Amino acid sequence: MDPTGLSRSHGKPLFKQVYDYIWNRIQRAEWTEHDKLPSVRVLAEELNVNRLTVFKAYQQLKDEKKIYVKDKSGYYVHPGISMPFDDLDYPIVSSYVQKSHLSEIHRVPAAYQFSYALIDPYLMPNRYFSEYVKEIFDLYPTVLSTYSTIQGDEELRESLALFFTNKHRLHLSQDDILITSGSQQAIDLLARMLVQPMDTVLLERPTYSAAIDIFRQQGAQIIPVDIHPYGYDLEQVELYMKQYKPRLFYLNPTFHNPTGYVVPTEQRKQLVELAERYHCFLVEDDPFREIYFDQKPPPPLFAYSTEGYVVYIRSFSKYVAPGLRIAAVCCRPSLMKHLFTVKSLADNGTPLLNQKMFLHYFKSKRLQQHIMKLQTALNIRKSIMEKELSRTNWTWDSPTGGLNLWVQLPDSIAMDMLLAKSLEQSISFVPGTICDPSKEATSWIRLSYSYINEQKLSTGMKMLIDLAEQLL
Amino acid sequence: MDPTGLSRSHGKPLFKQVYDYIWNRIQRAEWTEHDKLPSVRVLAEELNVNRLTVFKAYQQLKDEKKIYVKDKSGYYVHPGISMPFDDLDYPIVSSYVQKSHLSEIHRVPAAYQFSYALIDPYLMPNRYFSEYVKEIFDLYPTVLSTYSTIQGDEELRESLALFFTNKHRLHLSQDDILITSGSQQAIDLLARMLVQPMDTVLLERPTYSAAIDIFRQQGAQIIPVDIHPYGYDLEQVELYMKQYKPRLFYLNPTFHNPTGYVVPTEQRKQLVELAERYHCFLVEDDPFREIYFDQKPPPPLFAYSTEGYVVYIRSFSKYVAPGLRIAAVCCRPSLMKHLFTVKSLADNGTPLLNQKMFLHYFKSKRLQQHIMKLQTALNIRKSIMEKELSRTNWTWDSPTGGLNLWVQLPDSIAMDMLLAKSLEQSISFVPGTICDPSKEATSWIRLSYSYINEQKLSTGMKMLIDLAEQLL
Repeated sequence: MDPTGLSRSHGKPLFKQVYDYIWNRIQRAEWTEHDKLPSVRVLAEELNVNRLTVFKAYQQLKDEKKIYVKDKSGYYVHPGISMPFDDLDYPIVSSYVQKSHLSEIHRVPAAYQFSYALIDPYLMPNRYFSEYVKEIFDLYPTVLSTYSTIQGDEELRESLALFFTNKHRLHLSQDDILITSGSQQAIDLLARMLVQPMDTVLLERPTYSAAIDIFRQQGAQIIPVDIHPYGYDLEQVELYMKQYKPRLFYLNPTFHNPTGYVVPTEQRKQLVELAERYHCFLVEDDPFREIYFDQKPPPPLFAYSTEGYVVYIRSFSKYVAPGLRIAAVCCRPSLMKHLFTVKSLADNGTPLLNQKMFLHYFKSKRLQQHIMKLQTALNIRKSIMEKELSRTNWTWDSPTGGLNLWVQLPDSIAMDMLLAKSLEQSISFVPGTICDPSKEATSWIRLSYSYINEQKLSTGMKMLIDLAEQLL
Repeated sequence: MDPTGLSRSHGKPLFKQVYDYIWNRIQRAEWTEHDKLPSVRVLAEELNVNRLTVFKAYQQLKDEKKIYVKDKSGYYVHPGISMPFDDLDYPIVSSYVQKSHLSEIHRVPAAYQFSYALIDPYLMPNRYFSEYVKEIFDLYPTVLSTYSTIQGDEELRESLALFFTNKHRLHLSQDDILITSGSQQAIDLLARMLVQPMDTVLLERPTYSAAIDIFRQQGAQIIPVDIHPYGYDLEQVELYMKQYKPRLFYLNPTFHNPTGYVVPTEQRKQLVELAERYHCFLVEDDPFREIYFDQKPPPPLFAYSTEGYVVYIRSFSKYVAPGLRIAAVCCRPSLMKHLFTVKSLADNGTPLLNQKMFLHYFKSKRLQQHIMKLQTALNIRKSIMEKELSRTNWTWDSPTGGLNLWVQLPDSIAMDMLLAKSLEQSISFVPGTICDPSKEATSWIRLSYSYINEQKLSTGMKMLIDLAEQLL
């Protein structure tokens, strides 16, 4: 497959941009019916493009009966074309605003929730937080009436730097860390900071669907890089870096979402070398590192970075208190000063209370015990899901960590139908196509085993399998 | 003054965009020293622009010795030009990333803090929150382990809708409200949603400096609209709307930041009519409504909106618990669905704990008592600041609400020098230029009387005035 098949459609040709320019203004009623439009010559000068480009745009608008020609003297707005904005979808908003595919699915409530890659709230240290929150207020009496610094609470960044240095040998200081409101915000800020419209971005295929939406929103051209149980095809990655000069490669090499794959150590080193050679940033998203069932995963790519091309996103709150929305971004000073600015304009800093609450749990001994408990509980849930699946001919690679199974169903099952029928019965899952930048994974689905309890998991899976069999 | 004087510099000519395209790639080392650059013909085709445009860009690069010509056969990268990215400011980041001017000032700690338009933490209900936070955890045991819906907690939106309807007759349902992490995020999301590069945006002169940075970051062309004690010159506003077809007008008509002016009722109605006639959104930021010293201000512009052109941003947490970072955006369904998407990709929703904590204070009777206490305390502080100023020949309009004085100093004082000397003595203020989209308010400063206590306020003002006199 042509890897750019999908992305070309996002690099709008210039005449189409001129078309949009005119059509936007007609729809916004800046030019209304029977208004004379600027001549080809005038518009070409105004937009600083070739006259032929404007001509081509006008021709298409004419063909679509949005404008008409009179006496060969010029172009006019067709009557009945401009509409009040309430009826319109498109021209109100910036053309890069995308659908948020995952959030559309999550809007539908479901009892058998296989679409949330979140951990069951009942596995969380709720009671502990409830008991110790008062302490936070005693320790920091004005915690609610002061802002955090924009880069994030110093005490928290110091603890994180220590943790990264001791645990992953990342050699960081607190100045290399910025706190964001969850890893979603981290990806969004980095996209805004690093990517301009028409820049090329590499994404894994499959990948986290919101990342696809975020980079599209930023106007990026996306080139998918397949991820396999053994990692990437590095020759292919090098070829893409050479050929397309991508700005960045967003990747999740440890218990990858949705497949659960772990990119091996040797490839990690080579990837960093490639990134440095081709000046391509690696944005490493690493939220599932602690959720392993067997052995500890290899060190982050960031550990092999010497020239500063790796940016590391680490969400911790996911398995402690997702409601706090706390993640850390690590990068070198040259990037940090820009990240600081983008964060400052985006929200002026993550709330201090949330940072302090997380900090004290993070520093306590309970954290390690809690993680071990989670590993056991999630491994059991994974086994239950796999046991139910074992009576089907569906296929998947059993992951050694993370929250999801990436499952291939028989081609003959109509996935739209399965999703619709499932939602009717209060079962939700993520269709593979929204995890695929090229939307080709039509026979795949992502099933999260992390959110609902053992009994529901078993019942829900039985129902889902039955539904799929009825559709065969 | 030509109102577009400033904005034209942001509407980059096409040849300059081509120049940037080439120069970016050289600086990123995609093309390195002695590399042959694409021919004029090839690049013109690739970028779909006129060959002359590319030629012009190459000529400028040649004049600047960034590239050279060899044997008339083509253009080559000059040696010693591309640099490792650590030394670079510009090409790493998206060209629209701006400085965040206000946050730069706030980075310097100051004992006599006149630059924070925030309320003194010691005037806040800290003790109350500390005592009642446990209740929140009892009421919502999984508050930390679940996400809020993306649009915001339903219970909170319902309370807000009721409040808006009863108190301001805004006729809203909870579906018309989205919760953001502070009003800063609200402005940023709306800018991303409504503004494309090259779109025109009207901003008040002076205005909230972060708003200038945000709209610039979005690539907007900014046209300033002067705000006076009596409001705007509506003929001028209409002229601008007719001539520049702005996408939106961002405004703060109630105890305006930094001037404290209140736009009168009659103008509010007329503004909404203009907005509807010229299809220009009004983004109404209304954080200071409750901080009045005399009489209640007129209703929000939103109250006069029938066609949906007004978007209303209301930050409440500012005078209750700024650390919670809670604001509400109100708009009509056609816009809400897009705002939902942008918010979803930005951070997946504001933390639930923060929303629930705010909700319960908002619903309690303490809120009204607290606001009355604040009004008194802030009015006293304002008087102290004005008393100190009365021994100078500086001028200002005494505001009837809000947190700031907008003060004009004698022209002969070098403002940069005053700021530098002040910071040395741990006094901070906001220089007027950063509140002015055209950077012309060189003799003005913003002094916030809200953050430090009476005694410090008095001492700090004496010190500042002495410093200024020494500079005369």
